Amino acid sequence: VVKFGEDVLDFALKAWEMGRSDPRKVIFAIKMGLALSIVSLLIFWKKSFHDIDIGQYSIWAILTVIVMFEFSIGGTFIKGFNRGLGTLVAGILAFCFAKLSLLAGNLEEVIIVISVFIVGFFASYLKLYPTMKPYEYGFRVFVLTYCILMVAGNRTREYKEAVTTRLVLIAVGVAVCLFVNICICPIWSGEDLHNLVVKNFKEVATSLEGCVNGYLKFVEYERTPSKILTHQASDDPLYKGYRSVMESKNQEETLLGFAIWEPPHGRYRMLNYPWKNYVKVSSALRHCAFMVMALHGCLLSEIQAPAEKRLVFRTELLRVGAEGAKVLRDLGKKIEKMEKLGPGDILKDVHEAAENLQKSIDHRSYILVNSESWEIGRRPREQEDAENVSDSKDSDDMNLGFKSLSETVLDLGSVSAAWTPSATQGASSECVFRNQPSWPLRLPFDGAGVSKEENCRTYESASALSLATFASLLIEFVARLQNVVDSLEELGEKAKFRELILNTPPTTKKSWIFCFI
Amino acid sequence: VVKFGEDVLDFALKAWEMGRSDPRKVIFAIKMGLALSIVSLLIFWKKSFHDIDIGQYSIWAILTVIVMFEFSIGGTFIKGFNRGLGTLVAGILAFCFAKLSLLAGNLEEVIIVISVFIVGFFASYLKLYPTMKPYEYGFRVFVLTYCILMVAGNRTREYKEAVTTRLVLIAVGVAVCLFVNICICPIWSGEDLHNLVVKNFKEVATSLEGCVNGYLKFVEYERTPSKILTHQASDDPLYKGYRSVMESKNQEETLLGFAIWEPPHGRYRMLNYPWKNYVKVSSALRHCAFMVMALHGCLLSEIQAPAEKRLVFRTELLRVGAEGAKVLRDLGKKIEKMEKLGPGDILKDVHEAAENLQKSIDHRSYILVNSESWEIGRRPREQEDAENVSDSKDSDDMNLGFKSLSETVLDLGSVSAAWTPSATQGASSECVFRNQPSWPLRLPFDGAGVSKEENCRTYESASALSLATFASLLIEFVARLQNVVDSLEELGEKAKFRELILNTPPTTKKSWIFCFI
Repeated sequence: VVKFGEDVLDFALKAWEMGRSDPRKVIFAIKMGLALSIVSLLIFWKKSFHDIDIGQYSIWAILTVIVMFEFSIGGTFIKGFNRGLGTLVAGILAFCFAKLSLLAGNLEEVIIVISVFIVGFFASYLKLYPTMKPYEYGFRVFVLTYCILMVAGNRTREYKEAVTTRLVLIAVGVAVCLFVNICICPIWSGEDLHNLVVKNFKEVATSLEGCVNGYLKFVEYERTPSKILTHQASDDPLYKGYRSVMESKNQEETLLGFAIWEPPHGRYRMLNYPWKNYVKVSSALRHCAFMVMALHGCLLSEIQAPAEKRLVFRTELLRVGAEGAKVLRDLGKKIEKMEKLGPGDILKDVHEAAENLQKSIDHRSYILVNSESWEIGRRPREQEDAENVSDSKDSDDMNLGFKSLSETVLDLGSVSAAWTPSATQGASSECVFRNQPSWPLRLPFDGAGVSKEENCRTYESASALSLATFASLLIEFVARLQNVVDSLEELGEKAKFRELILNTPPTTKKSWIFCFI
Repeated sequence: VVKFGEDVLDFALKAWEMGRSDPRKVIFAIKMGLALSIVSLLIFWKKSFHDIDIGQYSIWAILTVIVMFEFSIGGTFIKGFNRGLGTLVAGILAFCFAKLSLLAGNLEEVIIVISVFIVGFFASYLKLYPTMKPYEYGFRVFVLTYCILMVAGNRTREYKEAVTTRLVLIAVGVAVCLFVNICICPIWSGEDLHNLVVKNFKEVATSLEGCVNGYLKFVEYERTPSKILTHQASDDPLYKGYRSVMESKNQEETLLGFAIWEPPHGRYRMLNYPWKNYVKVSSALRHCAFMVMALHGCLLSEIQAPAEKRLVFRTELLRVGAEGAKVLRDLGKKIEKMEKLGPGDILKDVHEAAENLQKSIDHRSYILVNSESWEIGRRPREQEDAENVSDSKDSDDMNLGFKSLSETVLDLGSVSAAWTPSATQGASSECVFRNQPSWPLRLPFDGAGVSKEENCRTYESASALSLATFASLLIEFVARLQNVVDSLEELGEKAKFRELILNTPPTTKKSWIFCFI
């Protein structure tokens, strides 16, 4: 009993917290209670009208309010439209069929049952049609109204009275809903969509920075985060950021569906506001977020580049990450303030940074490859120099202070499982094994020293190439930013965002400061 | 009018086609019609019972059928549970409040309106609580029943009669729903989930093969497929495959929500069938699909590796692609037939293939880098050999028949925009420009010949590194397969899939054949 009491208390606290963090939910609940109270007051007030017992039909007004009262105004409009149309069509159809069934005399009820079957069949079938999805609720209302009118109306034979009273009561319910929902603290889907897109920009920026920093700090995920590997929710903040962006697709489309029904309001004073372009911007951003995901994949990857090699490109990687995040945040702010992009190229800095990274990789690409194992040799036509070559290679390694062979982190789980621990201790001075079963390497010649060494080298180079992968993914991310900017420009054009004239000087100044740091 | 007639005809044809391709939709519609007919027949048959006018309350039975009758049996169970619980709790609460309001005398209606507000507020607030999502419908029913009972019941003062008749009629509706939905051609969500997971495996396999083949055939996406770049639906079959897998997440979770409510049936004869593990397998597969997406990203990328370089690793890439797709198809078939994985390691071949690819890249990594631009030079301590080195590099290129400089495909859109067309014609014999505005390269020294050439080299090496990226992504894909196999083993264990004993010989034979091709 104490346990149950604690649970209830815990639940109450969480519910209270929910209200505090998003007061709109409290407002919504109050509005819902208010609408219901108003409807019941009206019903009590007008108990009968022209000898028609309103109370009997009061269910319609209440049902309408309960079904129609949605969180956002767009949602309320859609439901109201569905409800109105469904009721109207069903009313007309029921009226015709009722007249027809009266002609049938004795077979009246048979005709009614058959018509119910036919209407139920067609409505249920057509609502499964893909483009009919938003009107699913309308089909339900249609069938419900038709059946009630035919079955209950048949009892009293007062089809006309039944139909009209019903329509009037539904209209009352709709009016109360719209009045309460629009006049008292309206909650707009369009506003939500706007904020969601802005939030997405910030989250991708945070994830991007986190990925680049994490990669350079060589955050090693000792525990394979199995939840991420099976794409489940996880506490990793990097993961949360881009994951929420990738999964906001459905939410965006729901909000879009509501937003296009909403009348011009607040900052969105325009008929046919281009809400679709918000979703388009967000889609382009999502395309970038996929690259951030791939970058995060490198952090979690089975094959990891050694820390020293990562540090070689530290400045360049960091700068691309910082500039990329800055651009995303700037773009997010532009949307937030509903400003057009300035005349200058917002991507200039990030492109420069990406270019520098590319050049730096190009100049030092010897780090990424294992030239010792080149098939054609380093200089095939000068065999006499072969020894010198390997000498010089070794000394290069010394000069640069690389201890790559011993510090490469490899996943040769199955190999280390096959060997006894002592053998591993003795033989693997060149390879460091992590005990993850994820990258099982099968040795062609078990236990042969030569092949062991060869495999070590192979995986060393694989690990170095993973650095190249990280860099190219980052560059590809930068390239994809162009799509975001393009779609944002289209949005700014269509939604008539404010022009900003005095925009260029401060940003260039900022980027100059950045360059001199 | 003719146009409208054509539209209607077109719609009818499409609706007919929908029924042909998925007969279950027709069956569902027939069942719905049948259930409604049965309920109306029952109401006609028992027009009154113990002096209570059933017809007046007939709406409850009809409403129950319309609301509860869902496509799948799990969905019907959830709705039925919500409906039953909501009605019951509301009935009890309404009964108590009604007695209380009768005591209040003149203020009776005030008490009722206030209680409606309170109930409406709490129900609307709590249904926004995240864990309450599946019971949203229950809250609606609760508020509806409570309001109707209080408002309409107040009219007749026969709360007890109203409550009991209502409950009986709802029970009738529930019984009809369950009878029709379970006894006539049942549609199980569990079966759907099973098939969806199997389908996902096939689609990822197809996409993977398509990506690798497309990459080697150098399918050049001249027209940037803007729909893919903004992550919208597109006709590209490669894209469709993995996109549907990535977007099936919501569908899976809906099906899972329904499936866990379904009783043991058909091939799933087990209490607490591990449906959750199906979703887990699918999540692991999705994690692989993200890599396929990244591979596809390489195909669409702004920076492309030249065709000849791709062909160097042709055999290895093809083999990894083919083996990976084969493994996915095998795993899909295992789930389809509900067989456990055999004792042999299903990933053996694909790991071998990935290893070969890795080694081959390792041996020929000189293709991927631009060693001419190495900062430290090739052999910094042997300056006297510098000329020889560049000589040999050139001849290497000749030997291998590379015309990389002239055939590298670069995106220097803004550069070509900055130059006049004639200048581009004359100066860019070394660089091929594509007219895409996606990768604007800013030249630090505009028009200076030296920097132009340097940029060309930089982008040449960037394009070669993109080949390395493709290969590492492919290898990472293979590494991630382990997660799929692990989660599949867990599923097989928990769901008690059949053991397969004579499994190993045929697969090894197949793989041998494959090796000898």
